This record gives sequence, C-alpha cells and structure tokens, in this order.
Amino acid sequence: MSELPSRVGLLGGGVIGAGWAARFVLNGVDVALYDPEPGAADRVGEVLANARRAYSRLTLAPLPTEGALTFVDSPGSAAQDADLVQESAPERVGLKQRLLAEASRAARPDALFCSSTSGLRPTLLQAQMERPERFIVGHPFNPVYLLPLVELCAGEQTAPEAVDRAAVVYRALGMHPLVVRTEVDGFLADRLLESLWREALWLIHDEVATVEEVDDAIRYGAGLRWAVMGTFLTYRLAGGEEGMRHFLEQFGPALAAPWSKLTDVPELTSAFLEELASQSDAQAGGRSISELERKRDDCLVAILHGLRGQGAGAGEALAAWERALMSAASARITGAQDEATGDGRPQAPLLSPSREIPAEWIDYNGHVHESRYLQLFADATDALLAQVGVDARYLEDGASYYTVETHISHLGQLHAGDRALVATQVLGWDDKRLHLFHLMFREGGEDPVASAEQMLVHVDTAAGRAAPVRDGVRSRVAALAEAHQRLPPPAQAGRKISLG
Amino acid sequence: MSELPSRVGLLGGGVIGAGWAARFVLNGVDVALYDPEPGAADRVGEVLANARRAYSRLTLAPLPTEGALTFVDSPGSAAQDADLVQESAPERVGLKQRLLAEASRAARPDALFCSSTSGLRPTLLQAQMERPERFIVGHPFNPVYLLPLVELCAGEQTAPEAVDRAAVVYRALGMHPLVVRTEVDGFLADRLLESLWREALWLIHDEVATVEEVDDAIRYGAGLRWAVMGTFLTYRLAGGEEGMRHFLEQFGPALAAPWSKLTDVPELTSAFLEELASQSDAQAGGRSISELERKRDDCLVAILHGLRGQGAGAGEALAAWERALMSAASARITGAQDEATGDGRPQAPLLSPSREIPAEWIDYNGHVHESRYLQLFADATDALLAQVGVDARYLEDGASYYTVETHISHLGQLHAGDRALVATQVLGWDDKRLHLFHLMFREGGEDPVASAEQMLVHVDTAAGRAAPVRDGVRSRVAALAEAHQRLPPPAQAGRKISLG
Repeated sequence: MSELPSRVGLLGGGVIGAGWAARFVLNGVDVALYDPEPGAADRVGEVLANARRAYSRLTLAPLPTEGALTFVDSPGSAAQDADLVQESAPERVGLKQRLLAEASRAARPDALFCSSTSGLRPTLLQAQMERPERFIVGHPFNPVYLLPLVELCAGEQTAPEAVDRAAVVYRALGMHPLVVRTEVDGFLADRLLESLWREALWLIHDEVATVEEVDDAIRYGAGLRWAVMGTFLTYRLAGGEEGMRHFLEQFGPALAAPWSKLTDVPELTSAFLEELASQSDAQAGGRSISELERKRDDCLVAILHGLRGQGAGAGEALAAWERALMSAASARITGAQDEATGDGRPQAPLLSPSREIPAEWIDYNGHVHESRYLQLFADATDALLAQVGVDARYLEDGASYYTVETHISHLGQLHAGDRALVATQVLGWDDKRLHLFHLMFREGGEDPVASAEQMLVHVDTAAGRAAPVRDGVRSRVAALAEAHQRLPPPAQAGRKISLG
Repeated sequence: MSELPSRVGLLGGGVIGAGWAARFVLNGVDVALYDPEPGAADRVGEVLANARRAYSRLTLAPLPTEGALTFVDSPGSAAQDADLVQESAPERVGLKQRLLAEASRAARPDALFCSSTSGLRPTLLQAQMERPERFIVGHPFNPVYLLPLVELCAGEQTAPEAVDRAAVVYRALGMHPLVVRTEVDGFLADRLLESLWREALWLIHDEVATVEEVDDAIRYGAGLRWAVMGTFLTYRLAGGEEGMRHFLEQFGPALAAPWSKLTDVPELTSAFLEELASQSDAQAGGRSISELERKRDDCLVAILHGLRGQGAGAGEALAAWERALMSAASARITGAQDEATGDGRPQAPLLSPSREIPAEWIDYNGHVHESRYLQLFADATDALLAQVGVDARYLEDGASYYTVETHISHLGQLHAGDRALVATQVLGWDDKRLHLFHLMFREGGEDPVASAEQMLVHVDTAAGRAAPVRDGVRSRVAALAEAHQRLPPPAQAGRKISLG
C-alpha cells in the first residue's frame, strides 16, 4: 500500500473507534466498521460530525475527498480486503483476543493489525491470531482525530517491519508515533496519567477538594506547561542554568515527603462513586457531553494553531500533515490542469473552498475582525498562486509574488459559525505584476460581504526586487487571465477612498 | 491599599522569586527584593527581560509604567513599608520560618504575608511570625509571570480576611487564585504533579524509556488536553453521554491493574542521578536554559491567546487582566485629555505604543503575513477611537464606528523580532464618517514599511445602520481633526489600484 491505506477495518465504534473512523475517513480512507452495540452508527456519526467541524477550523489545507464509511456485521467482514485492521473494543483480554483471531483469519495475509488498548500487553493480545507477527499496539488518545500521540508497542511475536509500517500509516494521518521500546502494562502515557488520576481520586475521597478544584489546579497551571513540554524539560528549566542535576539536588528530597497518597487505591464504594459522579455533574453545569466536546475541540484547535506557529511539539505534527495535504492537492491540480485543453480553461472566477468562521475571530463589536477578512483574501490569493504553479519548489528557486497594495470594501458582515468562500478573478497582468479581484460570500448568500482588489509584484526573493515571472508560471497566468477577460468587470474595482 | 499593592517586599530571588518580581514590576508595583546569594540581581534581571519580552507578545493592552526594582540587604528592609511580603526561599522549614519572623517584625502591622512554598504547611511557616494571622500560602507556578494559577492555603492561625486580601491582589495581577480549603502537604497541584513525576522517574530508572520519550508521551497527547480541562472533565467526556458513572464502571477496575509503580520512591543514587542528568542534557540538545525558556514562553503565549479566543480557563484570566488594564489606561487618558486646554491639543499624528512582531506572524515568504499589518492598523484605529471616547460604555449604549474601506500599501518589510509602531492622522470627518490615515514604521527606522487609508462609518449598532456620532465623542473627534489639519497631507492617500 502507499503511505495511507486505501481501506481500513475497524473493530469497535466507541469513543476511540469512532475517533479512528473520523481520522481515517477525513484523510480519504475507506472504513468498514464492526460494532455489535445498538446505537453504534449514531455515535460514530456524531463523532464524525465533530471531527468535520474541528478540521474545518484546524486547517485550510485541502483535505482529500472523504473515504466511504460502511457498517458491517462481523469482524471478518471488517477485515476483508483491509490494508489495516484497528481494534478498539472494551479493555477485556478475552474479548480482544477473540475479535483479533476472527478478523485475522478473514484478512489478507499482508494486512497490518493494530490494537488501541490503553495498557494490555501486545504479547497477550496477539496470542490467538493467525500471523501474529503483523500485530502491534497503536494506542491513541481521545479525541483521536485531534491529538497526535499514538504509542506503538510490539509483542514478543511482532515482526520489526510491523513497527515501521504502523509508524508510516499513523504519520500519514497527521499523528506522532512514539515507539515504546519495552513491553510494559500501561505503556508510557497511561502509567503517567493513571498515577495522577489515582492521586486525584484520593483528594476527592478524603474530601480535600472537589473535582472542579482538582481540574482547576491542572488547567490554570501545570496543564499549560504540559501542552508545551513534558515533566522533565519543565523541571530542567526550574533548575535554572545548572539544569537537571541542580533541580534533583534541590527537589529530590521532597519526593520522600508524605505529599501524595500513592500506596493504595481508594475503594470505589457506591457512596464514593456517587460522590464523584454528582461532583462531576455539578462541574459540567448542565452542559451536554457534545457541547463540552465541541468546546474542548475548539480549544485544542486553538492550542494546535499556537504550537504550529511556534513549530513546537504537536504543532509540528500538524504542520507536517498540512504540507503533505498541500503536496497531494497540488499534484491533483497540476495533473487536472495539464489534461485540460484550450476549451477546458476556467472561465468562471476561481472559488476557494468554503471555511467556517471560528469564534475567536470575533472582535468587540461582535463581528469578524477586519484583519481576518484580509487573511481569507490572502488565502485565496495563495490558492490562485498555487494553481498557476507558485509552489514550494518555485519559492525555493528564489521567486515569488508579493502583495504591494490591497483595497478592501466591507459590504456586509460575517458572524461566528458562518461559512465563507472567496471568488477570485484575474483583472490583468504583465511581466512583473498581477492584478486580482476577490469577492467574499457567506455560503448560501448571494450578496458579497466584502471585496478586495490586490496588486502583486513578482520578485526575485534573493535580490529582493521585482523580476519577470518565470516561464512555467507565466503561461498559466496568461491562460487564466485570458479566460477571466471574458468575465464582467467587478463594480468595486478601481475605487479610491474619499469623503467627497 | 487599592487592588494592587503599591510596594511589595520579596524574600528570595530564585526562579520563583524572580518570576514574582517580574509579575509585580510589570504590573506597576515597586519591588524591594532580598536575596543573599551572589548573582541574584543578574538572575532576576534575566527573568525580568524574559517577562518583558513575553508580555510584549501576550497583550496589546497598555501596561502601566513599570514599578521600581531595588535590591536590599536584609529581610527587614524588604518588608519595611511593604503592603505585601512574598517569601520564595528554598524549601527548608527553618529557613522560611526565620525569614518570615524577621520580616514580620519590620513590617507594618497591616502588611499581608504570603509564602510561595510548594508544599510546606502554612501552620508550620507562620509559627514564629509576629501577627501570624496575616500569613497565608500563595503558591505560584513557573513561569510565574505567565501561568495564572496561585494556590491559597490558610494555616491554623490565618485570619479569614487574609485569604480574601490575597485573592484580590493576585487577581489584580492577572492570576487565578484557587483556595485549597483543607491544609495538606503539597496542596493540590503538587500532589498531582509529584505523583506523575514519581512514575516518570521509575520509567527512567527501570530503563523503560528516556526522559525525552516520557516528555513526548505527555506533550503530544494528554498534555494538550490538560491545558484545556483537567483530568475529571476529560474522563467525563471519555465516558460519553453517560458521563462519569459510566467511565468509572468501565475504567475503575483498571486502577487495580499493576500499571504503575507507586509504592516506593526510586533511590536517587549517584548513578541514577547521572543517568537522568545526561539524558536531560541530550534532550536539551545544546539549547541553553534561556533559549528553552524563551521557546516555552512563546508557546505559552500562543496557548493563552488560543484559550483567550475561546473564553476558556487560563484564557479567561488573561482576558480579565486585559480588561482591567484597558480600564486603567482609559482612565489615565481621559484624565490627561480633560486637563488639556486648546493649546494642549495633539498636533502630531497619534503614535501607538510599539510592539514586537512574534515569530508566528511570519508567512511562507519569510515576511509578516499581510493580514497582520491590517491587524496592527486596526489596533491603531481602536486606540484612536478609545482616545476620542469610544469606550466600553459607548459600545454598550449601542454606538460604534465600523470600518467600511481600507487601502493598504506595502512599502517595505517587517521581520520577526522587529518592533513596529503606527502613526495615525485624521484626514477628515463628518457626522457619520471618519477618514483616517496610518503609517507603520519599524522602531528606529525612518521610512514607513506600510500605509493604510481607512474610512469608518458611525453606526447605531442595534439598528445596524449609519447614525450621527454622539456629542461627547463628536467634540473630541472635531478637536483631533482640527489639530491634524495642520499636518502635511500624506503622499499615499487617495490612491487607487491600477496596472496603467
């Protein structure tokens, strides 16, 4: 198979299985899902809707056509013809073993098998499989369609190439595969998460704090750091320039202090369960899970955007995925254009894909901030440039178009949740210049909400000055400009600002 | 004292004490710092420089004039005349008790005392103080100038009003005070952090993973969630619509599984210490602590911005602090302008405060993205509107100015790390319109890097249509326009875009 499988079989459609379905389908992979629970299809549909919404905010990179999602009635049907089978059943060894064994008998011999188990050892899970060497743990984190981490852990019978194949697939999905080199229960992340959670349960059990107070103790403080760097690098910084040695000398002794109550697990009596559940209800304050999920997703998207800008951690995983999406789309466009003959040239303005306006674009007047209109117009300009062949390679060769002038007219208003799209028309061009006109519409609306007229100059980026456009791009600009000359001239073009 | 103290005494200038110094000084509070260690002043200076840099990216809200920072040679001198004394000495009970006792004898009787201890009980720390009822734990998190969490914990002798006073001060500094209602060692956050860290140390000790792998297991996965919601709300979502009860029924049993190794503390032998330290060195990859600190700060700023846009958690704390800064600045400006007579009217263009260009504003050409120029111009317009009296109250009354047209000319380029400022001139106005012209400069540069001409329309926001400007604002607009008429007309005004 290529980097991405073309067909995946999923065993289990709970929160994790549905998250996998969303990540695969939105990356263009066909999915066959087996889940015997009633209501599974509805739940998967909800998660998929959440994921579509999240991706429309996460990236402007062109996503491929969605894969097909089908529900099947046996593990074998899910595995049949699949390049990859991902098991996400409840955490019971026997159940997982049975599902994997049955699916492995129906699958192609070269199909890869992965389990989403949070902590069961792969050696146990692969025990009853046919060809157990193609099995590995691929443990993701909720929400699977947004968090990049996936832990890979091989069992005793796993072939080394299964690790490599799984890493390639997950990376192509925009994830960050982390190989756990030693087979241990709970792998790395869940050992850490569960240590913290155990202590959190004691704090509630002993009535030191409520669930909301414990959560606030994380999200206003260390949680912010943990999104950036893990616990060791954080503590290295706390040690100052002397680093980790100094930190351990200073804080090592406190480890022995009786700060945490780790030696035991609080008994989940029905009274304690009730206490936890009712505090959790109070914390949710009547917000439904799906409301909370959307809020969580919006915050995660905002954090991922921030980290992408910094080229750090999870933001790097996002950036790498977007680069891959751009290359794939660019290959599709170039292929399509090269096939087109004279009559196939676009005679309508270029339409950017519509995108949803996120809540954080709203200013104090309750409108989309004016700079975001320009951001959308600039994205449309970038899309046009990509279409005429100004791609990563052209930029690396030291040529580009720079915007020198922009005239925006506000004709209406966008609001959060609207979907906006931009129609772009080439008004004119010469050797060194490109004159564009954009109209922005609310999806479904007929009147434009804003227009932008732009002048771009073609530059030699090393010399830092205007230079003639190069041949490959020139012919495409000429073809597009010629096609667009047949369009009526836009009413808002050529304006100047005046009180008169 | 008002919400913010006017003078604070700090005991200790390590990473935490220096972070407090930065947070207080940048909020306009005078600080007297006592630290007997050699090099303390240099370290505090470095942290303050980091904090200035971080704040210039964190907020466009106008910060007050910095407080004065002085170094003093005794705990008594630090406490003298202070409204608040914050102790951040090493975690040794006897040392902290002595410092607090000595400072408490020199302080005013109404001075508030707080300790930054990570986990020592306040009852112990206040034992030898004069007026121990004014003492409370105020435990912050590194970097103190960016993370909002501060845990408040009262000792047996603490007066209830000390809790309230401390909460008011910390909130005015932009922090999120969390009252720990039961006096326990380690409070809430450090019990949780240390549980996780203990398990992390075992993973290294048992050679399951390296420090970098453990950190990746956090920052690519659960760490991202922890910046948004704590562990309980996260797990509530994992349980689906059935919530926490369902999650506990499903995952409660796994708590008893032998996933984590919590019953003991790994002995910090010199060999283990060496192993940790050398892995940590490898992870840092030659980057200095200050490099890593700046990267961490940039990422935290990006995350805080993201969460501010979502009105969530730590972003809410940031937004509340900015609103307070805006009100304070607005009060200063209005006061200053009301004092000015005819001749005192501004005859030069209005200058926005300069701000640093963050790395995440850079596009694929290596330049500041064009939408960010408009963001800076729009901020300058907002500053001008604030100056003529378009404030939160004016907006609430249903009136505002909306931008209807913007013409940007790019005349040069800004780069990451440059400081940019905008000069704004009123070109004209009438009852319903305001015609502005902005020039953007690199700080220290003489040639503008961009210009923007804008037309604004005054609107009745409820009716959603143009309406005459109201009286208080009208007179200020008239005065400013009259003063600016004496300025030369800008060369770039009145342009239209054309190939011709």
